[in-house]
Amino acid sequence: MAEASSKQFYVGVDLGGTKILAGVFTPGLKIVATSKTSTKADRGPKAVLDRIGRTVRDAIDEADLDLKQIRSVGIGAPGSINPEEGKVIFSPNMPGWEDVALKKELEKILELPVFIENDCNACTLGVHAAELGAKYKSLFGIFLGTGIGGGLILDGRLHSGFNRTAGEIGHMVIEVGGPKCGCGNRGCFEALASRTAIFRRLELAVKDGQKTILTEMLGDDLTDLRSGDLRKALKKGDKLVEKVIEDAAEYTGIAVGNIINVINPECIVIGGGVIDALEDEMMSIIIETAKDYAMPGTAKGVEIVASRLGDHAGITGAAVLARENLKG
Amino acid sequence: MAEASSKQFYVGVDLGGTKILAGVFTPGLKIVATSKTSTKADRGPKAVLDRIGRTVRDAIDEADLDLKQIRSVGIGAPGSINPEEGKVIFSPNMPGWEDVALKKELEKILELPVFIENDCNACTLGVHAAELGAKYKSLFGIFLGTGIGGGLILDGRLHSGFNRTAGEIGHMVIEVGGPKCGCGNRGCFEALASRTAIFRRLELAVKDGQKTILTEMLGDDLTDLRSGDLRKALKKGDKLVEKVIEDAAEYTGIAVGNIINVINPECIVIGGGVIDALEDEMMSIIIETAKDYAMPGTAKGVEIVASRLGDHAGITGAAVLARENLKG
Repeated sequence: MAEASSKQFYVGVDLGGTKILAGVFTPGLKIVATSKTSTKADRGPKAVLDRIGRTVRDAIDEADLDLKQIRSVGIGAPGSINPEEGKVIFSPNMPGWEDVALKKELEKILELPVFIENDCNACTLGVHAAELGAKYKSLFGIFLGTGIGGGLILDGRLHSGFNRTAGEIGHMVIEVGGPKCGCGNRGCFEALASRTAIFRRLELAVKDGQKTILTEMLGDDLTDLRSGDLRKALKKGDKLVEKVIEDAAEYTGIAVGNIINVINPECIVIGGGVIDALEDEMMSIIIETAKDYAMPGTAKGVEIVASRLGDHAGITGAAVLARENLKG
Repeated sequence: MAEASSKQFYVGVDLGGTKILAGVFTPGLKIVATSKTSTKADRGPKAVLDRIGRTVRDAIDEADLDLKQIRSVGIGAPGSINPEEGKVIFSPNMPGWEDVALKKELEKILELPVFIENDCNACTLGVHAAELGAKYKSLFGIFLGTGIGGGLILDGRLHSGFNRTAGEIGHMVIEVGGPKCGCGNRGCFEALASRTAIFRRLELAVKDGQKTILTEMLGDDLTDLRSGDLRKALKKGDKLVEKVIEDAAEYTGIAVGNIINVINPECIVIGGGVIDALEDEMMSIIIETAKDYAMPGTAKGVEIVASRLGDHAGITGAAVLARENLKG
């Protein structure tokens, strides 16, 4: 049997609307093993809680460990989270997730300490503490995926704001009257540079008769389009895809410029699936545009970097959360 | 002669590109007297330093006090400021203000401790500490005047950022491709809702043949247009002015919504000459628009208020600066 002294690993969980990812981490935040399950959010919170429990156990088993060797579990969950009370206040994409005691319920299921945080805040923690070695005192994390989210580190700690909702950069308006966003408003950053926005622009262009290799690859309705396909199209010199990706990178650069002007952090890190697939194509445009839009003197020495954590940002940050909270 | 114990007043100075305003304050931050001088910025830093000294002495004389009764002096100055070193790094609208030791030089002239800060940061301090009694832990101040500036209070203290330039909300882009801004970019908040932007829209509309009472009041080229004239035109039911002011208020509401989404402070306070003249006409639109653009749950309990300090925000904040630094 495992001794108390061998109780040294952490589990980080990324709870998403479609999948649950769990990872087992060493105290030095090296990843040992992962496990993935579909969320089945439509079955409601109780079923999802059981599935989180199962995913955690599977990841631990995959790492050839057992529950007794785990010190604590961290979870990044979408929506409005109250970490102190351990509750999900509201999660727009998961039916029934209103005032759910995620921490308490999961502690019952796993018999381990559990700590929770907003998913984008968790990603920001992961990038800050694990990927960048906590070397920046202030950092803004921007994650470009299906949607766009972010998180803010100030004085080395997560700044979650008055309603614990800080970092909602996806809904920063940068083009008044621009394209409609899922939130109901227009011109949000998310409606201009998320994967959803990029795909929609491509679909509209194809409907409009514009040429792209993507239709040869995927058919006229671009079924199953993925970020990786854009990369392939770019390699083949596809002009339409090039223009759409350039535009998304410019919008991202403008958003970064806004953050430099308004908050002036030491580092801005950009991650998520879109950057994961298109870092080479997008980062130089993002940096150049951000510097153009930042006021003179504001961007001096400010680092603008891509995260390489990709899909693992959430679980890594959740593991950081698990580790930091046990320390405290 | 004044005793040491009577050394209890503070002086706050607002150094602007066109005028220097100084105010004498009690320890409770009540204003006792003010004095105003033109800056004559074109004469260079040395001449301006002498004029600041003279304005401070005039204000003290106006208050029937003498220099010995002043504990310290605070100054808000435009541009990039290093408060620790007491230097103006760079001030775009004042010729020759590069790496000027404002604190040291003025301490020589006045023989009093001097503390300096960026002007918009000083205004934010003034509103936070003097007008709102420091009751908010986090606050964003937005000042609508000739330009637009801002400042950020976090954990009860000024957040000045990595390059001490945080709060540059006037250059947050909210309408990509929008009107040209003084900074060279397009679609900055300042290019959409500052007094300059409002006046330019009115001038263009008049050139375009649109009707407004303003031309009857001021002639076709709207010479000497002031914020107060807009108020008069609104009272007379001027439709053009109404539309232009409504638009400026909507843009401001969108900027406030962005701040709520990204930083999520407890309070957002809006001041400056434009709000001073048009609070009744603009604030309800600003608040309604901000709440529309803030994500669900993010604006709950967040106060959005107008500052009544008007022209005195800068000197009040500078007095706060003088008082706080002596405490520390």
